[in-house]
Parts: sequence; C-alpha cells; structure tokens
Amino acid sequence: KLYWQGVQRWIICFIIGVLTGLTAGLIDFCVESVSRVKFLSIKKLVDQCEAGSCLWKPQIVWFCFNIVLVLVASLLTALVEPVAAGSGIPQIKCYLNGVIVPRVVRIKTLITKVVGVICAVGGGLAVGKEGPMIHSGSVIAAGVSQGRSTSLGIDFKIFRNFRSDTEKRDFVSAGAAAGVSAAFGAPVGGVLFSLEEGASFWNQSLVWRIFFSSMISTMTLNIVQGFIKGHPWDLSYAGLIDFGTFDAVNYKMGDLLIAICMGAFGGLLGALFNHINYKLTVFRMKYVQTNWQKVLEAVMVAAYTPCFAYLLIFFSNDCRDITENKQDNNSVLVKFFCQEGEYSSSAKLFFDTPEATVKHLFHNDPGTYQISTLCIFASGYFFLACWTYGISVPSGLFIPSLLVGAAWGRIVGILVSLVDGDWVELSFYSLVGASAMLGGIVRMTISLTVIIMEATSNVPLGLPVMISLIVAKWVGDQFNEGIYDLHIHLQGVPILGWEPLPMPTNISAKSVMSHPVTVFRMRESVDRIVRVLKEEPHNGFPVVEDYDLDNPVITDGCETFGTFRGLILRSQLVTMLQKKLFLENPGVNEIISRLKVAEFNEAYPRYIPIQKVSITPVEAQFTVDLAPFMNQSHYVVLESASYASIFRKFRSLGLRHMVVINFKNQVIGIVTRKDLARYMVTFKNGEINIREKTIIM
Amino acid sequence: KLYWQGVQRWIICFIIGVLTGLTAGLIDFCVESVSRVKFLSIKKLVDQCEAGSCLWKPQIVWFCFNIVLVLVASLLTALVEPVAAGSGIPQIKCYLNGVIVPRVVRIKTLITKVVGVICAVGGGLAVGKEGPMIHSGSVIAAGVSQGRSTSLGIDFKIFRNFRSDTEKRDFVSAGAAAGVSAAFGAPVGGVLFSLEEGASFWNQSLVWRIFFSSMISTMTLNIVQGFIKGHPWDLSYAGLIDFGTFDAVNYKMGDLLIAICMGAFGGLLGALFNHINYKLTVFRMKYVQTNWQKVLEAVMVAAYTPCFAYLLIFFSNDCRDITENKQDNNSVLVKFFCQEGEYSSSAKLFFDTPEATVKHLFHNDPGTYQISTLCIFASGYFFLACWTYGISVPSGLFIPSLLVGAAWGRIVGILVSLVDGDWVELSFYSLVGASAMLGGIVRMTISLTVIIMEATSNVPLGLPVMISLIVAKWVGDQFNEGIYDLHIHLQGVPILGWEPLPMPTNISAKSVMSHPVTVFRMRESVDRIVRVLKEEPHNGFPVVEDYDLDNPVITDGCETFGTFRGLILRSQLVTMLQKKLFLENPGVNEIISRLKVAEFNEAYPRYIPIQKVSITPVEAQFTVDLAPFMNQSHYVVLESASYASIFRKFRSLGLRHMVVINFKNQVIGIVTRKDLARYMVTFKNGEINIREKTIIM
Repeated sequence: KLYWQGVQRWIICFIIGVLTGLTAGLIDFCVESVSRVKFLSIKKLVDQCEAGSCLWKPQIVWFCFNIVLVLVASLLTALVEPVAAGSGIPQIKCYLNGVIVPRVVRIKTLITKVVGVICAVGGGLAVGKEGPMIHSGSVIAAGVSQGRSTSLGIDFKIFRNFRSDTEKRDFVSAGAAAGVSAAFGAPVGGVLFSLEEGASFWNQSLVWRIFFSSMISTMTLNIVQGFIKGHPWDLSYAGLIDFGTFDAVNYKMGDLLIAICMGAFGGLLGALFNHINYKLTVFRMKYVQTNWQKVLEAVMVAAYTPCFAYLLIFFSNDCRDITENKQDNNSVLVKFFCQEGEYSSSAKLFFDTPEATVKHLFHNDPGTYQISTLCIFASGYFFLACWTYGISVPSGLFIPSLLVGAAWGRIVGILVSLVDGDWVELSFYSLVGASAMLGGIVRMTISLTVIIMEATSNVPLGLPVMISLIVAKWVGDQFNEGIYDLHIHLQGVPILGWEPLPMPTNISAKSVMSHPVTVFRMRESVDRIVRVLKEEPHNGFPVVEDYDLDNPVITDGCETFGTFRGLILRSQLVTMLQKKLFLENPGVNEIISRLKVAEFNEAYPRYIPIQKVSITPVEAQFTVDLAPFMNQSHYVVLESASYASIFRKFRSLGLRHMVVINFKNQVIGIVTRKDLARYMVTFKNGEINIREKTIIM
Repeated sequence: KLYWQGVQRWIICFIIGVLTGLTAGLIDFCVESVSRVKFLSIKKLVDQCEAGSCLWKPQIVWFCFNIVLVLVASLLTALVEPVAAGSGIPQIKCYLNGVIVPRVVRIKTLITKVVGVICAVGGGLAVGKEGPMIHSGSVIAAGVSQGRSTSLGIDFKIFRNFRSDTEKRDFVSAGAAAGVSAAFGAPVGGVLFSLEEGASFWNQSLVWRIFFSSMISTMTLNIVQGFIKGHPWDLSYAGLIDFGTFDAVNYKMGDLLIAICMGAFGGLLGALFNHINYKLTVFRMKYVQTNWQKVLEAVMVAAYTPCFAYLLIFFSNDCRDITENKQDNNSVLVKFFCQEGEYSSSAKLFFDTPEATVKHLFHNDPGTYQISTLCIFASGYFFLACWTYGISVPSGLFIPSLLVGAAWGRIVGILVSLVDGDWVELSFYSLVGASAMLGGIVRMTISLTVIIMEATSNVPLGLPVMISLIVAKWVGDQFNEGIYDLHIHLQGVPILGWEPLPMPTNISAKSVMSHPVTVFRMRESVDRIVRVLKEEPHNGFPVVEDYDLDNPVITDGCETFGTFRGLILRSQLVTMLQKKLFLENPGVNEIISRLKVAEFNEAYPRYIPIQKVSITPVEAQFTVDLAPFMNQSHYVVLESASYASIFRKFRSLGLRHMVVINFKNQVIGIVTRKDLARYMVTFKNGEINIREKTIIM
C-alpha cells in the first residue's frame, strides 16, 4: 500500500507537468496570435498612410485593441476572482510557507489567471506572463493532487490519501516548479525556486519528484511549441521566454568589475522601484477599493501605455534601413514617421511581445538603437512597469524588469565601447543589466541565477550574472525588502522568515503565547463542544486531564488548564459531531474502531461550518470521547523555551500551533504563527527596537 | 555585534573559497606535471626502441613510476591518516548529517589527502581527484571557520563565536560546495551537492553564503589556471575537469528514447559495480586489516593497472595515422606496436590524465577508437575501478565512472550510426553514457544533473542527461543503494535518512528510547558528577527536580527520574569542574554571572577528558548548581509520540538527543541518534520486517 502511494505521487507529478506545459503552450499561442493580429493591422494602416497626416488612424486602432483587451482582463479579475491579480508569486510564497491564503488554488482562479494574462499581455501592458504561469502551475498541482474539484463538484474518487494540507503543499511546490520550468525553460531553476520560496526542508524524494514534474513540463511545452511552429518532435523550444543564442563570450577581469558596478546600479534602481511601488500600493489600499475604481485604473494604464509608445516613436524618430534587419524575420517592422524603405526602431521595441523585445535588446546589432531611444525607453518603461504592477490584472514582473535592465545594460555596453574604442559584446552588457535589474527588484538569489543560466543556455555567462545578482541584492537590501516580501507584509500575512528575529533572550514561550486557552477534557459534553466551536475561531484545541472548568488552578502565578494529553483539530470535532460518535449511542465503539483516517479528510479542504451541523437538544446532553482521535504526538514546548527555539521548530517542521506546558505538563498557553510573526525588529543606533505589527489573516 | 558576526561569516566564506580554489590549482598543477614527466619519458623510451623487441624497457619504467607513487600515497594514508583513504564523500555526508566522524576535518587529513591524491592519480590508478577535492574543501572550511588549528597548536584568536558543532557544520557545507565547485567548475552544482548531502534545512542566508564560497572558489581556480597556462586573467578555465566544448546538439525524440535505455543500462551496471564493491569491502574488513596488508594491496593494484593497459595496447593494436590527430595538441602519442608515423590509439586512453581521457572519449573523431578497443577498455576499467575504490589511497570515483560510461556510450553511438546509416553526434552518446554510469553508481540526483550541465557548459544537453540519470537511479535503486550509502552503512554510522522508516504506528517514543537514564539534580554533588562522567559515555544529561536516587518512583509501570527541567552537556560539566564553580567557593555567583558562552567553547572541539580534571577529596564533597547553565529550551517529547514524529524532529532540527517525558513531565528515557538509526526495514511478500542493525560509533 505504501508502495502504491509512492507510485501515485509520481503519477500526479507527471500529470502536473503535462498540464502545466499544455497551459503554458496555450497561453503562449494565444498571446502570439492576439499580438500578431494587432500589430499586423496597425502596420497595414500605417503603410496605407502615405502622407503621414493620417497616422491617427492606426493610433486609434492601437488604443482600441489595448483598452478592450485590458478591460476584459480587469473585469474578469475584479468581478470573478480578485486574488488572480498580480503575479501570484507572493500568494504562492505564503501558501508554501504554511499560511492558508483563501481561494488562491481554486480552479476559478486558474481560469481568470490564464484568460486575464492573455488579455493583459495582448493588450500591450508592461507585464509578463511568467509570474502568472507559476501561479497557474500551482493551481493545477493543487487540483490534480486532490483528484477532484470542489468548485465544479467533480470528484474522481482518486488520490484520497493526499487530501491534507501537508501533502497538498508538497504537490503545490511541484506545480510552482513546473510553472517556472515552463515559463523559462529552466527545470533546475524551477526546483530551486520552489525550494527557495517554499518547501523549507530538503527532502530528497520530494525534490526528486519536483524535478521530475519540472522536466515533464518543459518537455511538454517543447513538444507543443514544436507542433505549433511546424517542426513536430524537434525539441528546441525550451520555454515561454527564450533569450536567444549567446555566442561564446570571452570576458575578462575588467568585465567582471563592470558587472559589479552594474549590479550595484541595478540594486539601487530596484530599491527605488520597490519604494515607489510600495507607496503606490499603500495609496491603492486606501483609495482604489471598489471594483469600478480598479477597472478604471487598469484602463487608464492601458490607455497610457500606447501613448507613451507613440510619444517615444514620435520624438526619438530612430529610423533604420529596412534591409539592415537581417536577424529577426518574425518582427513586425513599422515605418511610422520614417522614410519609405526605413522602419522605426523605437516602434520595434513595442511592436512585438515583450519576450521578443527582450531578445531583440540582447542580440540586435550594435547600431540598431540610438542611445537616446534606449534612455527614454528604459526610464519610461521603468515607471510604467512600476505603475502597472498592482493593478487589477494578472501581471508578471519578470519581463518588464528584464526589459528595463536590458535597455540600460545596452546603454552601458555602448558607452563602454565608446570609451574603450574597441568592439564589445553588447549582449553581455544587456544580459548583466537585465539580471541586475531583476535581482534588484525581486531579490531572489540562487534560483534566479540558475533560471537566467538555463534561459541563456550559456554556463560561462553564469559567473557575471551571479556577481551582478549578489551585488544587486546586497545593495537593494540596504534600503528595503524584495517586492514580493513588501507585498506580503502589506497584506499582513503571518509569514515566517528564514531565521528567528534577534529577540532578547528573556522572550520565552511564556511571553509570546496566547493565554488563556480553550481546552477540552478527554470526555467532553456535546453541548460545550458546539458552543466553543461557534465562539472560537481556532483550528486546534488541547485535550487535557484533571481540569475543572469552574475552578481554575494557578501554578507559579499563571493560570493552568490541566495536564496535556493531546491535540484535537476543529475539523475532527465537526466530523465527530456529524457522524454522531456519542458515547451514549449504542455500538459507537465499534463504529469508531472501523473509522478510517480518510473519512476525516473527506470534506477537505472545505469543512462544513459548525453552524450547519444539526444537534438535537437530546444529543446536546451526550458526551464524546476525544481520546481515540486526538494527536498524541503533537509538539509541546516548555514555558521556558526561547523565542528562537520555538521559531525554529515552527519553521522547520511547518507547524501551525504548539502547546505551551509548564514543568508539570499542564497546559498554560498556545503559540500560533501569528504570535511569532507579529514582531518586527528594527535596528537603530545600535539599539534593537521591537514593534508589533498587524497581522490580519 | 550581530552585524559584525554576519560580516565575519562572509569573510570566512571568502577565505574558504580562495583556499579551496588554490588547493585545487595546486593539485591540478602537480598531477599534470607528474603525469607529463612520466608519459614523456616512456614515450622517449618507446621511440628509441626501433625494433620493438626492447619494449620491456618503457614497460619497466612505467611500472616503477606507478608503484613508487602509489607506494607513497598508500604509506601516507595507512600510517599518517587512514581516514583520508577513499573519496571522503561518505565521511563528509555523515559529518553534515550530524554524526561526529573522528579526525575527518583535521589538517593532517588534508595534507594526506592532497599529497596522496597527487601520487595516486600520478601513479596511474583508476581514480579521480574530484572526490578528494570535496573532502579537502570541507577540511579547509572547518579549519578556517575555527580560526585555529588544534593539531598545529596555532590559535589566531579570531572567529571564536563559531566554535560550536552547528556553526562549524554550516561552514563545512560551504567548504564541500567550494570543493565541488573547484572540481567541476560548477558553483551551482556545488551548492546543490552540499544541500542534497547535508544541510537538510534550506536557510536562505546560509545557502547564499555557500553559493558565494563556491563562486569564489571557481574564480580563484580560474585565475590560478590562467596564470599556470600562461593566459593570466583569462577566465576560461572553469574546473579541474573540463568536458570540452559540446556543439549545439539537435536531438530528437528518438535520441531521448535511447537515453532512457542507456540510463537503464547504466543503472544495471552501477548496481553491479556497487554489489561487487560491497562484497569486496566486506572481504577487506575481514582480511585486509593491518597497515602492511593495505599497502600491499594498493601496490598490487598499482602494478596491475599498467599490466592491463599494456595488454590492451598489445591485443587491440588500434593504430592511427599520427597526422589524423588534429584536435588535442597536448596529448602524448605513443606508437608502441604500431608502424612508424602511426600512434596507438589504445595507448592514448592511458597516456594522459584520466580527466583528459574523458574529454578525448567525448570529443575525438568518430574513427579514433575501434569498437573492440572500447569494449575491452570499458569492461576492464570497470573492474579495475571497482577493485581500486576502497584501497588505502585517496581516490575519487567520479572520473573512473565517467570514463567507463563514456567508453560504452561511445560504443552505443557507433552502433547507432551503423544501424541508422546516418552521421550521429558521438559526443551526445558518450556524455549520456557517462552520466548514466555515474548516476548508476553514486545515485545522486539533482546535484549531479547540474554538475554535469555546468561541466559541459551546455544547457540543452541537460535534458537527456537528466533523463538518463533519473532512469539510472530508478533501475539501480531496485537492487541496492548508492555506493556512498553502502559504505556508510558498512561502517555502522548512525546516519538518518530523509524520511522516517515505515514503522508500525505502535512504535512510540517509549519503545525506541534508552532506559534507564542517568540524570542530575539541579544541585548535584561534585563526587557524583565526576563518577557519572567517568562511567557513562553520553554527551548530554537531563537535569531534574524531585528525584531521589535511592528510591525510584514507578509511574504507569515505568521507572521515572524526576521532573524535567533542562539538559546539560558533558562539555559544560567538565568546564564547570575545571573552573571550580562550586557553591561552597566564596564569590562563585559573581564568577558565574561574568562567565561568557565563549569560555565554554574555548576547548572546542577537543574537550579535556574528565580523567584529566583534578578534583581534590575536599572538593569532591562540594556541590554544583546546574540551573544557570542547563539548556531550558531543550526539546522534549511525550512518551506517546510516534517514531515518525520523533524522526522528523531529529532530522529537521539536527538534534542529537531528545528527552522523553511522561504526562507528568517526568523523565522516563532519552532518545539518541543511535536509537533511531538502528532499525532496518525490509519488505518481503507484502510483509514488513524490522531488523536491528549494528551501530558502532
């Protein structure tokens, strides 16, 4: 049976990989098609317009396309599933950390996310589809591993053993990895992402399964892309984003020094980005609250984006001979304000999917863009991306960051070539710039390095990329946190960091615990259970012996609640009440002995609220024996235990609550995630200040 | 102060990286020089020998070179530091798992390892220098992080805060990563190796530091190699082993199917290898025990290796035109039994460092080797490597495995080209064969994939490599464990796996714990402490209240040892006795309040044995107050806790002992690593059998 469970796990991971790959293929295909239709119709209108005076026509068409598409995306997000907004990475991070984020892995979220991101990217917003892909992978994983969809009311009656938080979390981490893997063609990077962001404990068999999922996902996408592009079974399409082929670059020590400087600059810019976006988010939380306001903001951004593009095209007027463009045959080249036989290279920055534009910035010939065009583009897009991240559409942050970074990286490269006089490899500088910018904003570490390494398919370039990422993170961390962490903290989620805060040693379990505690006796009356469940929101209750409700015992100046025997969960209590496992019922012991664990998980994850369980007045007088159901292995901690040791236990064992006992094994309190996460430590002038912050969820 | 500690950690990681890189450079340089001298003098003798009848002369010289070098290596290992034998990876794995392996991170071990590996590789044994490099990195890390060498009696009085097992372990994992990184030019692979093999908990800042170390190590080696090879500051020498440049390979679905088959074959061969080596090791443990026997065996292997090579050269007689060899100008081409103007391509397999031979097998022109040569070479080298691993010299297993795998991979490639009729990329097949073989033997997973990916500098090839590794591991695992795990288990080390064994649920803390327990009271007499420390080998003792030594209390049919208050370590007790912290001494409380944690760690890691602490008869009557020193946050577990939950706590928190209490918080037993590691579960006909195995350490 254990063996069969293991096989099932592999099967689930296989399905997760395949579905994630297919979803990625679908998104990619739709985005490409929508963009192509849009750009070609604009190009046609521009080409028809000989005199240059009728350029308002394509502009209008451009406007309409964008606004309609973004309107669809934002309406969907605002009305159907608000949690699908943004990249979804903060939510997945919280989920993997052990926080229950409502509705984040539902099928409705998936559909909103997929359709929304197609419209948002197709609508020309400064967003990427990589972050949403990670979220999509996670939702797919959560759904597949449960063998049913509660929303759709379908239950395949399979994989029932995996209907618990821990199991589901493991699969979600596989899904997130599959998502990254499909998005960037980076199976190893995907595994690292999901380890870095979530599954804190490195369990070899779990990691191995996650890896399998990622690999299958890349392969599936590969095959799908091969079919779409007309080269079936040719496995050369790695991910949604493709950084193109980097030639064997031969960098020297001096280039690494430049990489360090670029890393520092990227860190500074990233910190600025995060700061502005933080302020903006605070503003939004206050003033942009209703759905219509949200949709309006999204449409505003949608309208502003082509304006910015149009202005850039108008003012920079960077024209190139159309015959010069040999590299990318797929690009839509529009002439706009240029002469016949020329095309506008600033328009080229917008007339393609953002992914393709990143590739252009990496690889196009040195002369393709003027410095001024790149400057305006980089700075304008920086603020545009900053404004865009947080509006009510599914939106990834990776591509805009890479775009901005690649643009200023290219500027650095051009400047170096001017100073040096020599020919330099521009793609080196734009890649380093892109990674520095991305690193400065998201502050991911080793996983980002590997993702970029895999996306570039070039290992030697890994070293400068690594260096710029390390420096960017160091510099950025001096000012603020990564953007995902900022958003998580703004939402007041009780997420636990990597290390316990440096709290004074006198902060012990006793000072952080919640007190008093509601406990149950080994044999408890139905009446009291129902009353407590209705009154208290807690999910776990200690089960004790020798406790008299009416005569509290004070030991060492602290109220105690009887000797600890085990812990019972709310869901177990509700199920017991539903199944009427009352001691007074005849034959109840036999029923209990035949009960299976699976029956308790049947209703997972949406347990019936206690209000819906009907208890007759007669039954209310009955009693329930909690002993056979309570968890006797539950983790306890002595009241004298330090904050750091409790924190480590919570973090490495992924706990949600821990019972605090005194030296007589009497319950005196309970520690939850919130109790640990509510502290904030700031250093100022060598002094440590501890503040409490608001935890909402 | 906390900030300064953080900075120190980074500095230590920097130094670890630099020193590991330098060591790698040194080893490489020496091996290259020794091999070159050897091969050139043999070539000279062969070239002088016109008739072919005097070929015994070079043969004798070859013999002497090898035997003398291996003799030095094995004498060093046997007499100076036996723990330096082998690759060192099993020992490091145990160390990182939390088991204290004696002498494994001493400076004497490092010197033996470095000199030994130079002689062993120079002596032409079927060994690599990559495993020993990992061990060397770990020793360097352990030394640097402690800021002193106890063996040399030098104490720089720095980094005193890091003198504890946990801190040292973190740095050792950085050192291991730096070692991998230098060996293969794989900084990311190094980090993954050290996570996969050791640091179970993924702590972001730790991982980040490990990464930094690896990167510095690669860079240092790079710069050193640049200087040695005469291209200073040219950063193109990635690691000790260099797989050469793989062209952009365009593989199809069919190739992936072949990769699956090759993976399965590699898994089978690997299982066979491990089985033979296991039997051999058992034989060695019984019959090869004295130092002289060990040295004799090493010399036998050293003598046999050139014999095998000579026979291969003689029988296969695979001659090529010397002008055909365009690719590797550095190779020593010997003609042996060939015509003038020809060279023996079977001799070429031996007349170079093993690393270079791997490269030849990957990249040489399709016609370079005959199938028959490759067949004999692969099978002969397979058994040779199997025999060699475990003799008393420092020896890595990576290179021999890669060699055998690359050889049979090449055969597969040639066969495919015969069947297909088409031209095929031989380097693809030999790479896949090499990774399948290596995967089948060591059974590492994701870290190995990344290492190979980084060593080949080719990301697209990662997919077939991954597939062959996954299949090789699956197939191999059906038969036995990876070779490192086999060796660890043969040594009876209490290593804990990734997941708790599937034990029956009725196995609780009470059934695995050690009982009775030796406890101390809060105020304990000096006499008893000294007596207990002399009699008991344990490292930690519970401190209790309400316990009468002479009148044991039986609760629930189980002897109890008083109410648990904390845990005290042997080292703390010894230090307290040494410092004479007796309550009867005047002013002792003031001394205690001024004591610093660092003073307790002063003697780390070689605490004075209790026998060396002098206690006068008068002092023996005194008492000691344990309360200020005991660890009150120590982890406790209720007697009813399940095996699985205890296991998870041990594994994820890296514990060594855990006190078992009953429902009154009375100590009833103690669980140690040994108690958990001594079970072995085998499945047979659907039944679970639990056996106990011997734990020696």
